[in-house]
Amino acid sequence: MEKRAHNFFAGPAALPYEVLKKAQEELLDFKGMGVSVMEMSHRDKAFIAVAAEAEADLKKLLGLGDDYAVLFQGGGATHQFVMLPMNSLHAGDEADYIVSGNWAERAYEEGTIQGKANLVATSKTLAKPFSELPVVKQENMSPKAKYLHFCSNNTIYGTQFFENNYPKALPGVGLVCDMSSGFMSHTFDATKFDMIYAGAQKNIGPAGVTVIVLKKEWAQKVFTKKLPKSFDYNYQIKKESMFNTPPCFNIYITGLVFKWMLEMGGIPAMEKRNKIKADTIYGMIDKYPDFYRGYVTNKAHRSWMNVTFNLPTEALEEEFVKAAKAKNMLGLKGYRDLGGIRASIYNSTSPESVQFLADFMEEFKKSH
Amino acid sequence: MEKRAHNFFAGPAALPYEVLKKAQEELLDFKGMGVSVMEMSHRDKAFIAVAAEAEADLKKLLGLGDDYAVLFQGGGATHQFVMLPMNSLHAGDEADYIVSGNWAERAYEEGTIQGKANLVATSKTLAKPFSELPVVKQENMSPKAKYLHFCSNNTIYGTQFFENNYPKALPGVGLVCDMSSGFMSHTFDATKFDMIYAGAQKNIGPAGVTVIVLKKEWAQKVFTKKLPKSFDYNYQIKKESMFNTPPCFNIYITGLVFKWMLEMGGIPAMEKRNKIKADTIYGMIDKYPDFYRGYVTNKAHRSWMNVTFNLPTEALEEEFVKAAKAKNMLGLKGYRDLGGIRASIYNSTSPESVQFLADFMEEFKKSH
Repeated sequence: MEKRAHNFFAGPAALPYEVLKKAQEELLDFKGMGVSVMEMSHRDKAFIAVAAEAEADLKKLLGLGDDYAVLFQGGGATHQFVMLPMNSLHAGDEADYIVSGNWAERAYEEGTIQGKANLVATSKTLAKPFSELPVVKQENMSPKAKYLHFCSNNTIYGTQFFENNYPKALPGVGLVCDMSSGFMSHTFDATKFDMIYAGAQKNIGPAGVTVIVLKKEWAQKVFTKKLPKSFDYNYQIKKESMFNTPPCFNIYITGLVFKWMLEMGGIPAMEKRNKIKADTIYGMIDKYPDFYRGYVTNKAHRSWMNVTFNLPTEALEEEFVKAAKAKNMLGLKGYRDLGGIRASIYNSTSPESVQFLADFMEEFKKSH
Repeated sequence: MEKRAHNFFAGPAALPYEVLKKAQEELLDFKGMGVSVMEMSHRDKAFIAVAAEAEADLKKLLGLGDDYAVLFQGGGATHQFVMLPMNSLHAGDEADYIVSGNWAERAYEEGTIQGKANLVATSKTLAKPFSELPVVKQENMSPKAKYLHFCSNNTIYGTQFFENNYPKALPGVGLVCDMSSGFMSHTFDATKFDMIYAGAQKNIGPAGVTVIVLKKEWAQKVFTKKLPKSFDYNYQIKKESMFNTPPCFNIYITGLVFKWMLEMGGIPAMEKRNKIKADTIYGMIDKYPDFYRGYVTNKAHRSWMNVTFNLPTEALEEEFVKAAKAKNMLGLKGYRDLGGIRASIYNSTSPESVQFLADFMEEFKKSH
């Protein structure tokens, strides 16, 4: 077996061993065709089946029916920050945004460029910016908004919305969520959403493909701006993501991750696994709160995906990262603007890797 | 060794065996790191080196220096059809377009949406649409145009511009080329161009990444529109394609193809190889012109990348494709709007595969 590291990268991030192994096995010969999945037309029935299976498996995982469309596109979630208001906001149209972190703020900024974006709530202004989720009040929302946008998990600072505190839109206002780094990490009712999008490279696949889930009826109603075909969501829905050549290999790997998730027991199994992993690391932070200083101030807002903390000094943090790397643990350095330590423990990161990190934290504490 | 087919897909298309083998070997463990190249941060020095090498190798192949920037983006060439006029055409601004095929026409259409696009020349109006290259006259060009756009190879109908007949822009007008399906298939002076873009999935890599080569000085001068960051070429240049997460694995594979090309002897070696392959297939068409009826009427305009022809009846064409498939030759069915046969023989397709097809054509002719 290959040497495999304990992977705590924030994204692109760990993929399941089984997925990589399968991709490796059939890399030069996909299903006996004698070509790689990278080497065949996206119009060939073999690839059409790959994309259709990925879509069907995603819908099965989310419990969605024919009233929802799934798109697989390039460009990343950042691209969707622009596409969403571009498709929906005519001059003077409003949209509501909740700002719980850097990426949520970027989405909000693009909204302000394209139309009238309202800042419903932000936790940027806290003494420790984004150290907890913002307080969302419906009285700050606009009934005229085309949609309410929020970001489910804050990759950088380490807060996360769960189903019990997902923001609720006003009646008739679409609910839109950037789930890039929290997608399918816990059970939730996807039918409550009009649009969900997620860059694959955190929880569900490699970089280079973004999954967009759209309630068709809502998309027809709200996406009414005249746009170039490449930018038009409804045109993409009509063409089933095949208007132009899609990122084929990226879709294929994402589809393999969906199959892995289904085999593991679907989203409920991911939730169970992620809860155990989060408890393991936060348990260590709570055991030595003076040494491992969690960035997030409200424990109920702690992300299960990105665990952020500081050590007493920057020198100790550097030593921590270096010593961890020597023990084959990668990606623990915090985001460049924030510093400190960040352990990203998405769906694919194994409980064994997380336990290995927790044991290392115990040992590192004792020796310092 | 794996069973490998003779791959004539029009794109996504064949990749070099050596590239796939290398990717397979290190799929679970990139350079001893214990993670896949799909599983590491795009900010990690290991991936930054992958992207930097791909860029340096591309520049080496093209003989370009520091006055050119290279971008690796998602979204495909179709996306660039929109991005180019969006970045450059203010209200009333002009751009010149040459329409030598469907994709060139799509690019032209996007130009007409964003600004004033002039149709300099088209071969669509021929009795057999796009059966030769259009006659390009400088007198039909506008000296006020921001750029002259053409598409170097017509994937669908099978015509190709070579360096001896590349269109020349008027003084002070930028020369822009969509080289998706002809990129680096023959030697040419890249410094004559202000912008070259190419979807990777024909000649240089897998679907999901587009290479954009920009003369920096020209980009600064012409791309002056205020745009969202995701859409702004100059912002992307400033951020070295790393404004957001790029399609990492796709860049990695494309970089391996560049290394393979360098090892093979660079673009001159590709030209030699492609000339031999084209001569092999066209030789068979010219040997049996009543049976294999080449679509392209002017032999000097024949594409080295996509060889298009008809058989006397549709029934024979179907039989040809089926019999070829039985002999492990894939992707020979013509484009859905055109029908007939299309053999795509990009850089990576081996001369042996092409000879195998020619032998089959000989045999099929004799038995029908």
